[in-house]
Amino acid sequence: MTDRKQHAPIRLTSHYEADAKTLPIKWGAKEAMERGPVIATHTDPAHRNAIGAHGGSYSVYRALAIASGALPPEHRADLTNTSPVEEIGPHPQWSDPERIVSLDPWGHRVAQVFESYLQQGIDIRPTIAVTRAHINMPELHDAMEKGRLAPDGKILTREGDVAVTKAALEPVWHLPGIAKRFGCTEPVLRRTLFEQTGGMFPELITRGDLEVFLPPIGGLTIYFFGDVSRIHDPSVPLASRVHDECNGSDVFGSDICTCRPYLAHGIEECVRMAQAGGTGLIVYNRKEGRALGEVTKFLVYNARKRQEGGDSAATYFHRTECVAGVQDMRFQELMPDPLHWLGITRIDRFASMSDMKYNAIVKSGIEIVNRIPIPDEMIPKDARVEMEAKKAAGYYTPDGKVMSKDELSAVKGRDLDG
Amino acid sequence: MTDRKQHAPIRLTSHYEADAKTLPIKWGAKEAMERGPVIATHTDPAHRNAIGAHGGSYSVYRALAIASGALPPEHRADLTNTSPVEEIGPHPQWSDPERIVSLDPWGHRVAQVFESYLQQGIDIRPTIAVTRAHINMPELHDAMEKGRLAPDGKILTREGDVAVTKAALEPVWHLPGIAKRFGCTEPVLRRTLFEQTGGMFPELITRGDLEVFLPPIGGLTIYFFGDVSRIHDPSVPLASRVHDECNGSDVFGSDICTCRPYLAHGIEECVRMAQAGGTGLIVYNRKEGRALGEVTKFLVYNARKRQEGGDSAATYFHRTECVAGVQDMRFQELMPDPLHWLGITRIDRFASMSDMKYNAIVKSGIEIVNRIPIPDEMIPKDARVEMEAKKAAGYYTPDGKVMSKDELSAVKGRDLDG
Repeated sequence: MTDRKQHAPIRLTSHYEADAKTLPIKWGAKEAMERGPVIATHTDPAHRNAIGAHGGSYSVYRALAIASGALPPEHRADLTNTSPVEEIGPHPQWSDPERIVSLDPWGHRVAQVFESYLQQGIDIRPTIAVTRAHINMPELHDAMEKGRLAPDGKILTREGDVAVTKAALEPVWHLPGIAKRFGCTEPVLRRTLFEQTGGMFPELITRGDLEVFLPPIGGLTIYFFGDVSRIHDPSVPLASRVHDECNGSDVFGSDICTCRPYLAHGIEECVRMAQAGGTGLIVYNRKEGRALGEVTKFLVYNARKRQEGGDSAATYFHRTECVAGVQDMRFQELMPDPLHWLGITRIDRFASMSDMKYNAIVKSGIEIVNRIPIPDEMIPKDARVEMEAKKAAGYYTPDGKVMSKDELSAVKGRDLDG
Repeated sequence: MTDRKQHAPIRLTSHYEADAKTLPIKWGAKEAMERGPVIATHTDPAHRNAIGAHGGSYSVYRALAIASGALPPEHRADLTNTSPVEEIGPHPQWSDPERIVSLDPWGHRVAQVFESYLQQGIDIRPTIAVTRAHINMPELHDAMEKGRLAPDGKILTREGDVAVTKAALEPVWHLPGIAKRFGCTEPVLRRTLFEQTGGMFPELITRGDLEVFLPPIGGLTIYFFGDVSRIHDPSVPLASRVHDECNGSDVFGSDICTCRPYLAHGIEECVRMAQAGGTGLIVYNRKEGRALGEVTKFLVYNARKRQEGGDSAATYFHRTECVAGVQDMRFQELMPDPLHWLGITRIDRFASMSDMKYNAIVKSGIEIVNRIPIPDEMIPKDARVEMEAKKAAGYYTPDGKVMSKDELSAVKGRDLDG
């Protein structure tokens, strides 16, 4: 930072100014220009019409880059050649202000729909990016070897390469809609977000006129299989899995849960559906450890493994509640938003047994035709505890069978030294 | 929240109070009680002696849980049975206030070392958790089939299960030390963190007396192989990889980079070393897309693939700089901290070719004996562009050979429709 900048007075927070010329945001408006761009950049604070910063958590790293002198604070992104590889939308869902409340449906198309503002020097950034990739997961090799998948040379090659389109989405919250989803008033939401995070963003309190907030949390990634332009067409069958991040399993293959196996199974379903002329969709949410974070998760693992009687399906949820106060903080209430962004109205094969996910999606107006359980042989050894506990708590079971309390107590995980 | 609470006045920020009875933090003090606990919980604001909140980004979800009424704001973690499965420390490095600045070395042991405070009703939370696990990665099966790894029945079973200890760490920043690492003054650091994140945490400005900050960013996970109690012993050979998160490769196996293959290779090195009586260590940092986040990463992929002449090793870094303003925001300056937390002074086999990581570790006083490049056959098809570009920019090459500009231009990636 320049010396001048350093010695300029610091504004602890901002307040509404009647004569400010910020562009209004009309959340849920049908046309992009009527909706207006979300501006959360800091190159010209006078233009800001949202609370928070771009990049979710990574805004903290951007600040470090500027503090250290590596990045000039006035840098603006050169968006040449970055536009999405697929159009995606607009869909009717975009113009319902309560259908999508946690992402900006125009976030991938800002360079196109807000070109005139960009030319005026307004620093608008994409909150969504869409690209293509080839992925290759060892589990798909295994599926080919065992005959569950066959290469077709295009969607899936003999070498196991799968052609996908993928999108990264940063959270963009419309606070009135978020409050409604969580059944609280907007003032309570704003105040709790402010106070319970240790005083993050006083503008949550002082700027009631700003309704859009970019929270410093992880976003999500969508993987598309098959023809992306037909993903919203209810006459084209769609396979899907909505997956919540679990680093220990997704990356390292920990055997205490079914996360990566279920993800691999979901991708297998998507590939098969795309090969059969349908489409596939994986939504990967950055919500580690049921959005409790990994420290809490590991504390719970220890408590589960060390409790009297050992780790057991009967007490699976209780230990999380002791440590975290709740069983789960993932809030599936917001989860259907990316599906509505894509214009989806029907999922033919839903690769998940979660009742919380199923209920949230169906309640949001999307039909789920079939629920696909993870094949038994894909469940890792130590993950039986989780599986039976979840079934007893409402997880989907094709045969409707759940264990009695005694039976649940008999489903044991290994101990810490096992 | 209760009605009473809702109508209580909102404090936009706090200020130093001469008569406050908060416990002081003496960063780098040798004994835990002298150092003092880091208190960032909100159950009793009068006790807080740090800026920010526990759980990194997940503090936002905790706030949502409270706003929606799912979690009582006064909930305190029941830490029964959660204590670390391995002691870890104290090590001499813990009492050098500048050696560790981005984590709390006592973070896993708070229930033990601050027991007397907990009994007084002070709400102290762990910022580190240490547990045990069994991991199973398909790549290790392949390594066994090809004879690179042999099962020993304990560290690695025939079924591919690897016995590990693992630790999750949340960021705890000592602001004076962070500023020093980044070569700026503490006021500049505080102000830039505040302003460039959109006004996050005014206490960064108003509470110069609070030197500890828990930023809302992802933390890191450490996987230990072999005897954890000897990991710091320089007479026991240590293999290690410090890995920065790349969801597209680590989870989905995207072929545009070497991330997951290099991680799998690092784990292979760790298993082999542990089997030979040494130890192994993987540090997994949550720094998606060089800490630029995934939206920026995908924008850059599009720009690389669409530029004139196509994706090429010669222009690899340039496209990131156009979009993000810098090539990289990972800041390896903080990366050695977890190694010092573990008391490590020497790494015998370092599974990384990154000059940035190597330099940061060596500069921090840890010896690196051998640098282990990723075997050529593990580099995915489309990742040659990245590999040759990085070699030309300073990546470790055993033979010291780097390509000329013309040769780099000839190393091409596939285009977006390829």
